[in-house]
Amino acid sequence: MSTITAISTAPGIGGIAVIRVSGKDAVKHCNTIFIPKKKTLSLLLQEPNTVSFGSIVNLKNETIDEVLVIVFRAPHSFTGEDVVEISCHGSAYVQQQILQLLLQQGCALAKPGEFTQRAFLNGKMDLSQAEAVADLIASTSAASHRMAMNQMRGGFSNELLKLRTQLLNFVSLVELELDFNEEDVEFADRTQLKSLATTIERLILKLSDSFRIGNALKNGIPVALVGETNVGKSTLLNVLLNEEKAIVSDIHGTTRDVIEDSVNINGITFRFIDTAGIRDTKDKIENMGIERTYQKIEQASIVLWILDCTQLSEHMEWLTDRIAKRATGKKVILVFNKIDKITEDERDVLTQMFEQFEGERIYISARERINTDGLQNALVAAAQLPEINPGDVVVSNIRHYEALQNAHSSICRVIDGLDSGISGDFLSQDIRECMHFLGEITGQISNDEILGNIFGKFCIGK
Amino acid sequence: MSTITAISTAPGIGGIAVIRVSGKDAVKHCNTIFIPKKKTLSLLLQEPNTVSFGSIVNLKNETIDEVLVIVFRAPHSFTGEDVVEISCHGSAYVQQQILQLLLQQGCALAKPGEFTQRAFLNGKMDLSQAEAVADLIASTSAASHRMAMNQMRGGFSNELLKLRTQLLNFVSLVELELDFNEEDVEFADRTQLKSLATTIERLILKLSDSFRIGNALKNGIPVALVGETNVGKSTLLNVLLNEEKAIVSDIHGTTRDVIEDSVNINGITFRFIDTAGIRDTKDKIENMGIERTYQKIEQASIVLWILDCTQLSEHMEWLTDRIAKRATGKKVILVFNKIDKITEDERDVLTQMFEQFEGERIYISARERINTDGLQNALVAAAQLPEINPGDVVVSNIRHYEALQNAHSSICRVIDGLDSGISGDFLSQDIRECMHFLGEITGQISNDEILGNIFGKFCIGK
Repeated sequence: MSTITAISTAPGIGGIAVIRVSGKDAVKHCNTIFIPKKKTLSLLLQEPNTVSFGSIVNLKNETIDEVLVIVFRAPHSFTGEDVVEISCHGSAYVQQQILQLLLQQGCALAKPGEFTQRAFLNGKMDLSQAEAVADLIASTSAASHRMAMNQMRGGFSNELLKLRTQLLNFVSLVELELDFNEEDVEFADRTQLKSLATTIERLILKLSDSFRIGNALKNGIPVALVGETNVGKSTLLNVLLNEEKAIVSDIHGTTRDVIEDSVNINGITFRFIDTAGIRDTKDKIENMGIERTYQKIEQASIVLWILDCTQLSEHMEWLTDRIAKRATGKKVILVFNKIDKITEDERDVLTQMFEQFEGERIYISARERINTDGLQNALVAAAQLPEINPGDVVVSNIRHYEALQNAHSSICRVIDGLDSGISGDFLSQDIRECMHFLGEITGQISNDEILGNIFGKFCIGK
Repeated sequence: MSTITAISTAPGIGGIAVIRVSGKDAVKHCNTIFIPKKKTLSLLLQEPNTVSFGSIVNLKNETIDEVLVIVFRAPHSFTGEDVVEISCHGSAYVQQQILQLLLQQGCALAKPGEFTQRAFLNGKMDLSQAEAVADLIASTSAASHRMAMNQMRGGFSNELLKLRTQLLNFVSLVELELDFNEEDVEFADRTQLKSLATTIERLILKLSDSFRIGNALKNGIPVALVGETNVGKSTLLNVLLNEEKAIVSDIHGTTRDVIEDSVNINGITFRFIDTAGIRDTKDKIENMGIERTYQKIEQASIVLWILDCTQLSEHMEWLTDRIAKRATGKKVILVFNKIDKITEDERDVLTQMFEQFEGERIYISARERINTDGLQNALVAAAQLPEINPGDVVVSNIRHYEALQNAHSSICRVIDGLDSGISGDFLSQDIRECMHFLGEITGQISNDEILGNIFGKFCIGK
């Protein structure tokens, strides 16, 4: 396997930068371009996990920089290989020069995530832990950071290991029967097996269900703002985002594109989706926007249905039908906007009109910022996200979620099979399949394509 | 002195990031938030210049990140104080969290350049070396990097030290005479003194002269593109910069702002200055642009005077006068543009017309890219920059240049004084002044304001 190198710190100019080298020739290649300050201390003989000070020189013996160099020896390094970290001045020019020198020595430029991929391949971490490294680097909130950290430290891996061990014991018994199948023995008590399978099914379901929270915490809870044209959706979005993101105008149908942006309310990330106003229109482009609005309602967890208090739609039934049809199973909050423009009496009439409506009702004025904090509280309540505690295992990766769903299908077939008394070889196949899908998550089962997909999304130098 | 901390790597997200802590409580503060993997190894007892692996935890004992920590002990560190470097995952969130924890422990946020300032104050480097650290980080070409590296490694400091030592010996003799001034003795042979002063004057002048090269290499050689409106200045600039920076149009007077951009030709940085076309105009804004053109000619080292082959100015004399007046002492290159639009015969006529002109003549077509490489070669020739070799001392810092100019005035007064036989106390004063200005460069003479100016320009974390 080649010796790889990359600049591991963020691109650009900084006080210092770190260039990482990993592979069996890491120390040898670095030694050629490094002159220690204490001339007697060759890098080849440097104690592992120690730092030495010296200069990087090029082939013409010109000093490129004065640097600190740390040597790690296999297997006690991040990648499990020999690793050298060169801490140089953060000049873009210096970083590039040192990188070029290392490439000239025979190092290969590391592909994105290749250091972490090697850590995985050398058994320093499993696949879900490696993926958590990327999540950790990308984390922007306490919750997403905590999920990534729990996963990186192996919480998820341990849960999966337990499940796989139980399944392995299970399938061993079943397969033992198969060896004796002429004799029609039953080593595995079917009642015990079913109880075990049911436990496993529940655990998988619990993990898989946690994806709703994990995904919401990682990517934000999708909230669609819908309603007729000109009810003040864009103004409300601006208030919620605290900035002038959407173009606000009085012309009907101003918002044609679906605008997305995130905001953190009480530590929960909401991903707001402003949509084109719903109305019967002949404008082709606007109709495409409305089509997207419907799609967005389907993708959202929470729907804010905005109404203009001063001007309720003539087609209220048509509209209710349109929105309600696509919002089943979602939290719908009815937002009565422009509340400052109507009287108490008019408000009472409104309340009566929507008495039948099940969702929450909030009265606000986006422009005058009346009760917008009430709306924020309603959003937090609607999010219904449990607190993530250190150590909690929450699935936030769609690849893991899909594998868990597949594993769940397999274990359900096992339970069905036990109920209907299918033969051991079919049972065994379904259990093995369940183990396969769980193994995909931690990387016991993997192939180059999966690995390429996972590590290709990393940043260079990690 | 407080213990300071900052993120030392480039801002943003990367594979890893480094947070630096310096000061007497550096190890203590880091120890509070760091749990080593090998529980027996307290950071307080960690061997200097070694790395240990462990976790950063917050006050609730939650793990923020798994990190590598290096401990350096005073005076064997960059700042000369106890220093801890924490190498964490390059997540913006993680970096901020760790920084916050350190601030909670009692660290102060480091001001820009404060680590390097402490290195200076603790005698790890002199002021010109400290300044070279910032130059090194900002260096973008081989030449600017080499100058900064020579300066950082003390080449310039050594030259200055030699000069100051010679001046000190000189002034000591003169001042010794003053102690005996009743007796009218002369310890310092005036002829020898004059010879020494002349040598020193030449050395200072040589250093001060190198600023022309140093500044050109650091900031680029200023090249003004001038000529009448619509001769193709902006098109030529685009070709030279290889991008569409200036707005090109056929309307006379399109370029009203002075546009600057740099390009590297054969390792030399040229800073091109496009200017408003010179013509007699009543447009007030355009006239302001033309005024700036004149100023820019004065700032440039090289003037590219662009002419339209197809349409020579009716006011050629007026124009020649305008440009020539401001271009004395500069390299002027006459660029005949749109050469593809005229015949051989017409070209011969042109050549004759400008026979008297002393500068170089180049025939090109910017639009058709005819002979633009010829123009590039002419620019490189006009730049006349000597090669900088490793070890060459070149002044590139305007502060040093100004100090050298002041030192030069002082030493010239010394020489004049020796010629006119002024008394020892005046001589002594001028020599001391010269020493003072040289001392300003290396920081033997400094004050808070100077230091604030110098280190305030550094990036945070260095």
